Amino acid sequence: MSTPSLLILPGDGIGPEVMTEVRKVIDWFGAKRDLAFDVSEDLVGGAAYDKHGVPLHDDTMARAQEVDAVLLGAVGGPKYDELDFSVKPERGLLRLRKEMDLFANLRPAQCFDALADFSSLKKDVVAGLDIMIVRELTSGVYFGEPRGIFEEGNERVGINTQRYTESEIERAARAAFELAMRRNKKVCSMEKANVMESGILWREVATRVGKDYPEVELSHMYADNGAMQLVRAPKQFDVILTDNLFGDILSDCAAMLTGSLGMLPSASLGAPMANGRPKALYEPVHGSAPDIAGQGKANPIACILSFAMALRYSFDQGDEATRLENAIEAVLASGARTADLMGPEGGTPLSTAEMGDKVIEAL
Amino acid sequence: MSTPSLLILPGDGIGPEVMTEVRKVIDWFGAKRDLAFDVSEDLVGGAAYDKHGVPLHDDTMARAQEVDAVLLGAVGGPKYDELDFSVKPERGLLRLRKEMDLFANLRPAQCFDALADFSSLKKDVVAGLDIMIVRELTSGVYFGEPRGIFEEGNERVGINTQRYTESEIERAARAAFELAMRRNKKVCSMEKANVMESGILWREVATRVGKDYPEVELSHMYADNGAMQLVRAPKQFDVILTDNLFGDILSDCAAMLTGSLGMLPSASLGAPMANGRPKALYEPVHGSAPDIAGQGKANPIACILSFAMALRYSFDQGDEATRLENAIEAVLASGARTADLMGPEGGTPLSTAEMGDKVIEAL
Ligand SMILES: CC(C)[C@H](C(=O)O)[C@@H](O)C(=O)O
Ligand SMILES: CC(C)[C@H](C(=O)O)[C@@H](O)C(=O)O
Repeated sequence: MSTPSLLILPGDGIGPEVMTEVRKVIDWFGAKRDLAFDVSEDLVGGAAYDKHGVPLHDDTMARAQEVDAVLLGAVGGPKYDELDFSVKPERGLLRLRKEMDLFANLRPAQCFDALADFSSLKKDVVAGLDIMIVRELTSGVYFGEPRGIFEEGNERVGINTQRYTESEIERAARAAFELAMRRNKKVCSMEKANVMESGILWREVATRVGKDYPEVELSHMYADNGAMQLVRAPKQFDVILTDNLFGDILSDCAAMLTGSLGMLPSASLGAPMANGRPKALYEPVHGSAPDIAGQGKANPIACILSFAMALRYSFDQGDEATRLENAIEAVLASGARTADLMGPEGGTPLSTAEMGDKVIEAL
Repeated sequence: MSTPSLLILPGDGIGPEVMTEVRKVIDWFGAKRDLAFDVSEDLVGGAAYDKHGVPLHDDTMARAQEVDAVLLGAVGGPKYDELDFSVKPERGLLRLRKEMDLFANLRPAQCFDALADFSSLKKDVVAGLDIMIVRELTSGVYFGEPRGIFEEGNERVGINTQRYTESEIERAARAAFELAMRRNKKVCSMEKANVMESGILWREVATRVGKDYPEVELSHMYADNGAMQLVRAPKQFDVILTDNLFGDILSDCAAMLTGSLGMLPSASLGAPMANGRPKALYEPVHGSAPDIAGQGKANPIACILSFAMALRYSFDQGDEATRLENAIEAVLASGARTADLMGPEGGTPLSTAEMGDKVIEAL
């Protein structure tokens, strides 16, 4: 089999600096574990806009379609706030998701033992937390038509359309049930079926797909109650299945429960390609953090863990992924901390590069 | 001025039993504070469906339009889960909101000192919390057309429409700024302007309205970040302004931060009527809690505090509202607890009626 290919899109803000550390990790796997990757790098988001006037160049899009996996840093920043909607940094990311048809966004919300104190929640509420959120990523209100700002009488009206077909719901649901089979066999599907017809269809399809997974316990929850339950008792959940917009909010809520956003990776998966690998994009859950960009303060772990997810979901290297995850746990257990993980006791935080080096050492 | 009128709609589940306690409080104000109300009672939700086959009878709707304020308990229950969308208990509540044009939903998320330990969040994160969420309540995806489940090719598609006109956004924003002027003069407006055009219009109108309130500090936040920030550091907020669907989720998230859902009231306000009072409906944030309904276990305080909000916002009796709120604080400080407020230490909880009596005593 030929060397697997990886497209790296560092993007904006802290994206480039955390990605530098991921490159070290990729190189380590090539040198020490005989896992070489054919790595190329390109621009996305504001960085692409600055060079090309668009947040994703067509050539980059074409390249993303060809490679085995894409690894993205982060997009956006205040510099681009006044840009027209159609060329905002976010549109680059959304175009990748849509054109690669990455319908299943996997967002683990895991609380690392060494960091349980960082949560704003009580330790016993979050210690050992391990949820997987499966968010539909290519449809819903993010992409539904009609959309826009229109004149109506003597004022304007802003319109977006929530739209889900049965097959769109079905494939996202199937991804959730497949994951649940390898976890604790529970899926909780969240929508607003009490007020939205799209939620009624969602619930119906989730129920139908669930019949193919009799071992998995399926429950349904209104999304507002879901937000409450995440705050009240998050450990009741195993896999949460939800749509694009609810998933955006609920996964961020879940991420914050862990107290360490700088630690959380994500995978966005599509249909299998000719070589059997799914179309895939991996990115940290955190944003571009413009306030600390370029200062070497950012925590590279979320992005490194995103590469671990790539090892597991794109390259069938579950053991190597676990090796990397264990190395990170060991680094944390040893007390190594970037600035975002410093408690009130203080101390001197590690720089982005120092944290990357620690991970390499632990490997 | 004639005796103010109050329509009481106990609804389903624990609605009737908590409302019984509110009646005691209303009677007390009539007897002791010379604040008599002309009280009538009617059905809503499943209770109305059982009698009339619809979750809100036209006569009840007409009566709600005439009275000075409506006080609602809760709607819904598993018994009605299989009902057609158009006659579900929730439709009764949504019809009231829509036809009374109650565009500003005020949801305080307040953490009571005596109860700070109940939160799943660390005490220092929530102690003293006092946020007011202003949720637009009559538009957005809750009511936008087209909506429904349609055939498309050989499958079905679920569609809902997010729709906001400038004037709809403006009146909700104005309500938020007015409240901020009487509070800590900060408004944070939440939307997804990075992915939704309706969010762009929302942000633009909120900014324009803000110019009329130069003393108020206006900020904008994407709703997903809003959910994160609520969990991370909720005390950074004063007034949060948001749309119907985001408001549904974010206000429930905020409510759960306080740890005591059985304590939280809400007010839904519309335009001033001929007598100068706003159209108004008051209801607790908690639901119908079918699991404990009819057992005398429910906490009546959220519903009693909803009546306090009625005193303040409908009847210009801010001092009397404060009197009632202080009585409740005193009751809590004395250690009185319903089952939902019992800590792990245990003890014998008060019944719904006993808690109502304590409030009367404290008054
Ligand atoms: C950057 C933005 C477009 C994106 C989204 O809304 O999906 C982000 O919040 C996310 O969750 O990945
Ligand atoms: C009962 C339901 C229709 C309602 C809503 O979604 O608005 C409830 O969740 C609320 O927040 O008042």
